[in-house]
Amino acid sequence: MMKQEYKERLQAVADAVTSRIDTLLAPSGAPYDELKQAMAYSVNAGGKRIRAALAAECARMFGAAEDVCIEIACAVEMVHTYSLIHDDLPCMDDDDLRRGKPSCHKVFGEATALLAGDALLTLAFSVIASMPQTVSADPANCLRASQILSSFAGIDGMVGGQVMDLQNENAVVPAETLKQTNALKTSALLSAACQMGAAVAGASEEMLACLFDYGYHLGLAFQVIDDILDVISTEEELGKPIGSDDQNHKTTFVSLLSLEGAKKLAEEHTNQAAQALKKLPDPAFLTELTQDLLNRRA
Amino acid sequence: MMKQEYKERLQAVADAVTSRIDTLLAPSGAPYDELKQAMAYSVNAGGKRIRAALAAECARMFGAAEDVCIEIACAVEMVHTYSLIHDDLPCMDDDDLRRGKPSCHKVFGEATALLAGDALLTLAFSVIASMPQTVSADPANCLRASQILSSFAGIDGMVGGQVMDLQNENAVVPAETLKQTNALKTSALLSAACQMGAAVAGASEEMLACLFDYGYHLGLAFQVIDDILDVISTEEELGKPIGSDDQNHKTTFVSLLSLEGAKKLAEEHTNQAAQALKKLPDPAFLTELTQDLLNRRA
Repeated sequence: MMKQEYKERLQAVADAVTSRIDTLLAPSGAPYDELKQAMAYSVNAGGKRIRAALAAECARMFGAAEDVCIEIACAVEMVHTYSLIHDDLPCMDDDDLRRGKPSCHKVFGEATALLAGDALLTLAFSVIASMPQTVSADPANCLRASQILSSFAGIDGMVGGQVMDLQNENAVVPAETLKQTNALKTSALLSAACQMGAAVAGASEEMLACLFDYGYHLGLAFQVIDDILDVISTEEELGKPIGSDDQNHKTTFVSLLSLEGAKKLAEEHTNQAAQALKKLPDPAFLTELTQDLLNRRA
Repeated sequence: MMKQEYKERLQAVADAVTSRIDTLLAPSGAPYDELKQAMAYSVNAGGKRIRAALAAECARMFGAAEDVCIEIACAVEMVHTYSLIHDDLPCMDDDDLRRGKPSCHKVFGEATALLAGDALLTLAFSVIASMPQTVSADPANCLRASQILSSFAGIDGMVGGQVMDLQNENAVVPAETLKQTNALKTSALLSAACQMGAAVAGASEEMLACLFDYGYHLGLAFQVIDDILDVISTEEELGKPIGSDDQNHKTTFVSLLSLEGAKKLAEEHTNQAAQALKKLPDPAFLTELTQDLLNRRA
């Protein structure tokens, strides 16, 4: 696939997801319409729609219709957004800004932000469960997608990773712990996105296992590169101050393994992600996306 | 059904649900086991398991096996518990106590309580999505149950009701608004519990509609009686100070309709709940439960 075609497909998925989510969250005149406003504000706050693209393109790879691809993409994007809203709350990371814009609770208040996160998580499962009606998807395949999402977003997935992240604060943790934290916090939902897409299209468990591996290594490579960029990038390129991890006394792959060791680790996970892709029927888009994410300068 | 048999079945469901949830939340030696402790603490904090009983008995009514009844009951109980944990957080009702015990965030801290709520909501959908494997349930029926839960627990259900509840604080609201708030905040999950149970057992949409009606009126009758008891009960019977609604300047069905008007409204909703039950194949348990809830003194 040419880089141009990859970029066009990424943009097309992003646009279709935004449009569909706008429809799902359109005000209905209910007294609680502000909830939908808060949800839509955060879902459309400028994310790159990476998880949505993974879900949509994996569904497409196994033969799903366009509307099925977009529906499952919306579900995973909602879960990603809910996790960001809750992560930004004062009792968690207490972040006033998200991608340069005021975070949900700064605009709508803490209570509404909490409930907007809750409602986005709930709506994601509603979108999947309604797919037999909305886009003629197979009920058993949808249930498998719901199982994947709930399993990778929960205790032994994203939420467990957030608990580990809290525990790691202001502590020097060993590399294995840092790896496990990132595997749960980041890889889990990337893996889930790929597998959910493939599952609604009826892919085999063997293919789902390949996509699990792909997401696992993609997530780890992504995080290691994040840590590297925090050291070697410029503030101009990164769009935020560099060296923030060091100032926050945060254990990173660079602080544990040195810059060279971290670069080697990123390369290893990138290679293993590429290996996993080789087993898939049509990995061209994912191959481009992997390169795009891992060669980034910011 | 004799009152004794009803009480025994209620207790049997409660015990089976507690036992199953203990298994699902057993520590695994993971670094994030504290999350499971927080979840288990709140799920087992002494609730009456009303929603669990409704789900289990509606599944049983339409022919589900015992393990199916308990599994779907666990799912709705988890969603109920998540809503209580988030409701007690400082940014919401800021309640230090729940059923006489310290609330989740007082024991485990705000961040862990927030994540415990998130993980319980997620686990509920995981339990349902895994039922074809865990208890041999039909995938399409499980997806329908997942759809019901996500629809009644989300924007146009429980979460929407919580947004309205926040809006109603310190305001005099008309009776219709109070009714809509309680229909969303309380009736929605009662309706969902009944319908989820019936759906996993393959009940018809017509039966689900009756159970919707039943849950709707049961929830409203329950809330009106709550408001009445706050005025006419004694502190000893209620286990908490009476007159608290009045002191908190809270609009209630009694403040809007007078004590007589509220009693009449409770009676109307009780009668309509009973009407809905008449259309079901074996409503004996639900009839007893309705009487038990609505004749309570506390």
